[in-house]
Amino acid sequence: MEAIATGFGGSLGYGRRAALILIDLMHGYFDEGSTFQLPSSDCLASASRVLEAARASDTMVVHTKVVLGPDAIDAGVFLKKIPALRAYIGENRTNELMPEVAPLASELVVVKQYASAFLGTSLASTLQASGVDTLIITGVSTSGCVRATGVDAVQHGFIPKVVRDAVGDRDSGPHEANLYDLQAKYADVVSEREIIDYFASLN
Amino acid sequence: MEAIATGFGGSLGYGRRAALILIDLMHGYFDEGSTFQLPSSDCLASASRVLEAARASDTMVVHTKVVLGPDAIDAGVFLKKIPALRAYIGENRTNELMPEVAPLASELVVVKQYASAFLGTSLASTLQASGVDTLIITGVSTSGCVRATGVDAVQHGFIPKVVRDAVGDRDSGPHEANLYDLQAKYADVVSEREIIDYFASLN
Amino acid sequence: MEAIATGFGGSLGYGRRAALILIDLMHGYFDEGSTFQLPSSDCLASASRVLEAARASDTMVVHTKVVLGPDAIDAGVFLKKIPALRAYIGENRTNELMPEVAPLASELVVVKQYASAFLGTSLASTLQASGVDTLIITGVSTSGCVRATGVDAVQHGFIPKVVRDAVGDRDSGPHEANLYDLQAKYADVVSEREIIDYFASLN
Amino acid sequence: MEAIATGFGGSLGYGRRAALILIDLMHGYFDEGSTFQLPSSDCLASASRVLEAARASDTMVVHTKVVLGPDAIDAGVFLKKIPALRAYIGENRTNELMPEVAPLASELVVVKQYASAFLGTSLASTLQASGVDTLIITGVSTSGCVRATGVDAVQHGFIPKVVRDAVGDRDSGPHEANLYDLQAKYADVVSEREIIDYFASLN
Repeated sequence: MEAIATGFGGSLGYGRRAALILIDLMHGYFDEGSTFQLPSSDCLASASRVLEAARASDTMVVHTKVVLGPDAIDAGVFLKKIPALRAYIGENRTNELMPEVAPLASELVVVKQYASAFLGTSLASTLQASGVDTLIITGVSTSGCVRATGVDAVQHGFIPKVVRDAVGDRDSGPHEANLYDLQAKYADVVSEREIIDYFASLN
Repeated sequence: MEAIATGFGGSLGYGRRAALILIDLMHGYFDEGSTFQLPSSDCLASASRVLEAARASDTMVVHTKVVLGPDAIDAGVFLKKIPALRAYIGENRTNELMPEVAPLASELVVVKQYASAFLGTSLASTLQASGVDTLIITGVSTSGCVRATGVDAVQHGFIPKVVRDAVGDRDSGPHEANLYDLQAKYADVVSEREIIDYFASLN
Repeated sequence: MEAIATGFGGSLGYGRRAALILIDLMHGYFDEGSTFQLPSSDCLASASRVLEAARASDTMVVHTKVVLGPDAIDAGVFLKKIPALRAYIGENRTNELMPEVAPLASELVVVKQYASAFLGTSLASTLQASGVDTLIITGVSTSGCVRATGVDAVQHGFIPKVVRDAVGDRDSGPHEANLYDLQAKYADVVSEREIIDYFASLN
Repeated sequence: MEAIATGFGGSLGYGRRAALILIDLMHGYFDEGSTFQLPSSDCLASASRVLEAARASDTMVVHTKVVLGPDAIDAGVFLKKIPALRAYIGENRTNELMPEVAPLASELVVVKQYASAFLGTSLASTLQASGVDTLIITGVSTSGCVRATGVDAVQHGFIPKVVRDAVGDRDSGPHEANLYDLQAKYADVVSEREIIDYFASLN
């Protein structure tokens, strides 16, 4: 990974209240033979451990999934770029969340149509109203929804912490390239260990 | 109604492609004894006639309803102002759409948490991607979600047409006051007759 | 003013950190003969006293003004509704802030094109990043930018406090009607006295 | 560049009306010794040729630049990540647009605080109100504002065309990696030649 230029890559630390977000950890990314299948489910296992630590510390937890309307009309131009998005029309196996990170009845599930969890959702309003200023980001994919959510988090005034072990991508090239950009310009990229220690410190 | 000042209240006309939106025509506004019950269902009957005309002209139709997450956490500060919003937690009779305007399987239902149909939803993106530039607004309530949606429509670059007969409110005072503001500053307030004639002219 | 229905009109209280916003207190609303001239400058005098109290308590202060680009292209459809907006093209006397509330060099001036101070601006991001959760609203006009900003404040997760004495309108009808709606559904409408006491309590 | 997976990387074509955006082509990226200086000004030369072709075809042109308020308070958390952003406080040489692409008096200059040209600006509203559905993207930097704007363009319902020769970055690694992601998921990455031919075809 290249060195980050001077005047970039500052450290953001932690704010006064964090929330954990688990992005699009749906069957469509993990089922054998699914269009979006990732080469590994390591990120899911890591996200599951992070989730457990967050719950143990009473941290707010938000899940996201993609659900599209009839004929995917609400995917707009995005659908033309990624025809495979049709798999998300209606609620089905493809957009069901994985059992390893299944939401509790008390946890919010944000339904989204685009890459960023902030775009076309009331996520920013919910976090603001809940006094959250730090967003701990896990999920998939690094070069897609994770990157877009990390960029939007800082653009909406939040401190984004991207958990390296708990995000995954189809290819290691885009995975590493996007973590590099996130760390250089938008977010703190941190390890699962650091985040679990952070949650433990809240108790 | 007061005269509108000079330099205000221009007429917007119609653009090249319209969509019809039906805002929050849920049981909660019409069921006997519901918290949000309106004194009359005239606006529902009118919206139903407008809907029929829109469908006959192949105009894009969008419905909205309010659905809140666990403990209404995604209603944020709004919930503190309107505790009655708790009725919208989860999918239930209160937020089910009325049979008179039941969505077809091909029509988009936008789920929202706030007053404006644009806030925290991908509505603007969907309309833009569909080539829509004119938004014909019906539903409830005039002083709440209709006003907020009309203001946001013009703020997002759309021509808002508010159908006077097809919007309703708890009280005639706020109903008239908000139609006045909408016509003066944000939208064309038009009759059901005009809109039905407009749809007929598209065939 | 009508009674507010049950389940509406809850009190929001104050959060942990407030900011004061002064909306569009420009010459265009107060100069003799200007298109947007208000019948009274009482709201300006009140806003000026509120501003002094905010500064004395080290509260964050944000001003807004309207500045439009060439041919007002960035006013979009809004311009067609309010042709008088042309007066705001470029920086000029019409959109210069009044001397009674002139911004200090350290205070942010948000430039906007639409009614809401949140729409098309980075205001929400700035407030979030500054740890602000309560927005004290003053300025003009009650039925236009004040209403739109109050509605958007709650929609973005902030507690809006609208200072009755420090907001003004062309007509008393829309002024009162909009304060009624704001108090019923979106904001706490409070007196200048209460807000000045609140600022004093911060010291 | 890796092969793009099946179901991704569809071609978007052109819509009915395009606008050209030139992102942040400011002295700060090109002046000798500036913090943000790029290794080459080839992208500026290309953007200048694209601009000339756009003007010759009467295509709408939008420029962006970064201007921050007092103490960069409106850069929020982003400032902590990129302390070098302080160079953009107020209007100065660093955020002045380059003479090769100097805006005409009739062209809109959008002032922004964040990476995406859509975030915290009224750009989406302006494009929608102008009937634009296709956004031709040039400027800097590929891994920062260009990527963020491309992603937001598709998320707002526009067809993004990123002009490979007219965008630039500090490093070739992030430059190529981001063009790969853009082409795979969000935009059509096209050559200067294709875009100039497209503009010529409009006459």
